[in-house]
Amino acid sequence: MRLVWLPYPDAVERLGGLPPGLRAETWTGSGPWPDSVGDVELFVVPYLLGPAALVPVPQMRSLRVVQTLTAGYDDVRPALPAGVTLCNARGVHDASTAELALALVLASLRGVPEFVRAQDAGRWAHLHRPALADKTVLVVGYGSVGRAVEQRLTGFEVDVLRVAGRARPDEEVHGASDLPVLLPRADVVVLTTPLDAGTRGLVDATFLGRMKDGALLVNVARGPVVDTAALLAELTSGRLRAALDVTDPEPLPPDHALWSAPGCLVSPHVGGDSSAFLPRAFRLLAAQLRRFADGRPLLNVVGSGADPGVA
Amino acid sequence: MRLVWLPYPDAVERLGGLPPGLRAETWTGSGPWPDSVGDVELFVVPYLLGPAALVPVPQMRSLRVVQTLTAGYDDVRPALPAGVTLCNARGVHDASTAELALALVLASLRGVPEFVRAQDAGRWAHLHRPALADKTVLVVGYGSVGRAVEQRLTGFEVDVLRVAGRARPDEEVHGASDLPVLLPRADVVVLTTPLDAGTRGLVDATFLGRMKDGALLVNVARGPVVDTAALLAELTSGRLRAALDVTDPEPLPPDHALWSAPGCLVSPHVGGDSSAFLPRAFRLLAAQLRRFADGRPLLNVVGSGADPGVA
Repeated sequence: MRLVWLPYPDAVERLGGLPPGLRAETWTGSGPWPDSVGDVELFVVPYLLGPAALVPVPQMRSLRVVQTLTAGYDDVRPALPAGVTLCNARGVHDASTAELALALVLASLRGVPEFVRAQDAGRWAHLHRPALADKTVLVVGYGSVGRAVEQRLTGFEVDVLRVAGRARPDEEVHGASDLPVLLPRADVVVLTTPLDAGTRGLVDATFLGRMKDGALLVNVARGPVVDTAALLAELTSGRLRAALDVTDPEPLPPDHALWSAPGCLVSPHVGGDSSAFLPRAFRLLAAQLRRFADGRPLLNVVGSGADPGVA
Repeated sequence: MRLVWLPYPDAVERLGGLPPGLRAETWTGSGPWPDSVGDVELFVVPYLLGPAALVPVPQMRSLRVVQTLTAGYDDVRPALPAGVTLCNARGVHDASTAELALALVLASLRGVPEFVRAQDAGRWAHLHRPALADKTVLVVGYGSVGRAVEQRLTGFEVDVLRVAGRARPDEEVHGASDLPVLLPRADVVVLTTPLDAGTRGLVDATFLGRMKDGALLVNVARGPVVDTAALLAELTSGRLRAALDVTDPEPLPPDHALWSAPGCLVSPHVGGDSSAFLPRAFRLLAAQLRRFADGRPLLNVVGSGADPGVA
C-alpha cells in the first residue's frame, strides 16, 4: 500500500474513499507530523501555510509527487529533492477568483462602497451610477481564470475583448501587442495574468494612459503586474477607478496611499479563498490519486525538484 | 402632424428621428411647459419626478396616450382623463435591476462591506467567505426582472429555482404554494415580485423562518413585500443575512434599525437608475412611436384613465 499524506482529517471521506493500493494519513501542516514521514510517496501540501508546510520534506525519503493546492508554486520547487514531480492546483481557484472579479466590477460600478459608507452614517443617498450592461470588458490574461471571468459575464449584455501573451485567433484572443488598440475601447479592464517576466509591471503609466477616462481597472492576478505609483497617479487625478484584490506591496501597510485613493476598492487577496475552493480541490485530488494509483500520467505537472520546470 | 412631448432635449436625436406624421416638443418636467399643451396627443412622463410631472395633464385636451418611464404606474392612473391609454416601461429597467441584484448577492456573500470598512481603517484582514458558486438561488417573482436575474446567474455554477404567483410548468416555474418546500433548499432568495395584494407582506416571519440558517435575502422588488420587523428579528439573531435595495419605510429614516442590523447591506433604491436605463428607454420609445404613428396596437398597455386597469 503506497502512502499519501492529505491535509484534512476528513479528506478520505470527502474523496469518497481511496483508490485500491493507496493508504492515507493526515498532516494539516501544524503540529507534529506522522511517524510515517519516511514512507510518504505523494504529499499534498497544506493550503495557505507558506514555507511551514514544507518543513518535513527533507525527511520524506520515499517522496515521488508533491501536489500543491495553490496555482502558484515558485516557493515550493526549490524545496523539492531531485526527481520529485510537482503538480499545482491549476483550475481549482478559477470559479472563486473569477467570481470575485465580478463582485469587484459590479460593486465598483454600481457604488457598493458608497452605499456602505452612507449606511454606516444612516444616510439614504440616491446615486445615479454606471451599469455593467452595454460596457466593453477587456480580459488581460486569457487563461483558465480569464475564461471563467468571461463565462460569468455571459448574461450581462457586455462585449468582451480577450488578450493573452500570444494571439490565438481561433479563440478570438488577441496578443499583447494589440493592447494599444484595445485599451482605449474598454470600460473595464480585468487582469487575470500569471506573474512572470512578461507581465511584471505590464500595467505601467503607458498602459494606464491608454485606458479611457473613467475606466475601471480590476486586478485579481498578482500585485506586481501593476505599477502602484503609476496607478496612484491616475486614481488621485480621478481619471481612472480601480478594484484590487492583490497589491504591491502586499499586504498593504496601514498607512499606504492605496487605502484612501479616490475610486479605489481594496479586498485582502481573497480571490481563491472561498467556499468554492474545497469542493474543487477535492475533485482534483480524487482524479489525481486515481492516476497515481494506476500509474497513469498525472494532471497539472509543472516541473520537478532540481530542474527548471516545464511551465 | 400629431404632437408628442418627450422629456429629453436630445430625444429626437437619440431616437434617430421621428416616424412620419409625428412632431415632438420637449418638456423635462421642470419649468414652464410648451404653449402646445392643448395639442399634445402622446405624453412621455418625465422620469423620477413623481406627481410634479403630471401637473399639465388637465390642460392636455388632445391627449390620447400617456407613456411612463417607470414600471410602476399606480400614481399615474388616477391623474388621467377618461379614455386616455396608459403604457408603462415594462422591461426597460430589467437589465439595471437584475444587475444590481447580482451586485448585492456577490457583495454580500464575498464580503465587500467588510472590505470597505477594513479599507477605511487601513486594515488588511483576510477573510474566508462563502462563494456564490455551488449555491441554490431561489428567484421569487419570475417575471421579466426575475428572468433577467437568472440570465445573469448563467455563468456562476449555481442552481436556480423559480417561483411566480401561478405555476408555469412549461418554464419550470413553481407556484407560490411551493414556497414552503423550496425555501429550505435556497442559499440565496432574490425578490423580484411586483407589489400587489398577493405579495404585500409575503416575506413574513413564517417565510423567513423557512429559510436556511445563514441564507441571504435580497430585495430588489418593493419594500412592503418584506415584513421589516420580522426581518429585523432574523438579522439581529444572526440567523439570516439581507441585502435590500428597497425598504419599508422608504427612504429609511436616519435612526432606523435596518441601517445597523448585522449582516444587512442597504442600497438606496438604485435598481433601475443606472446608465443602462436611457438606451433601453429610447428603444421602447422608438418602437412605441412607430406603432403610434402607424395606428398599430401599442406596447405595454396597462390601463386607461378612469378605468380599473387591465394589469
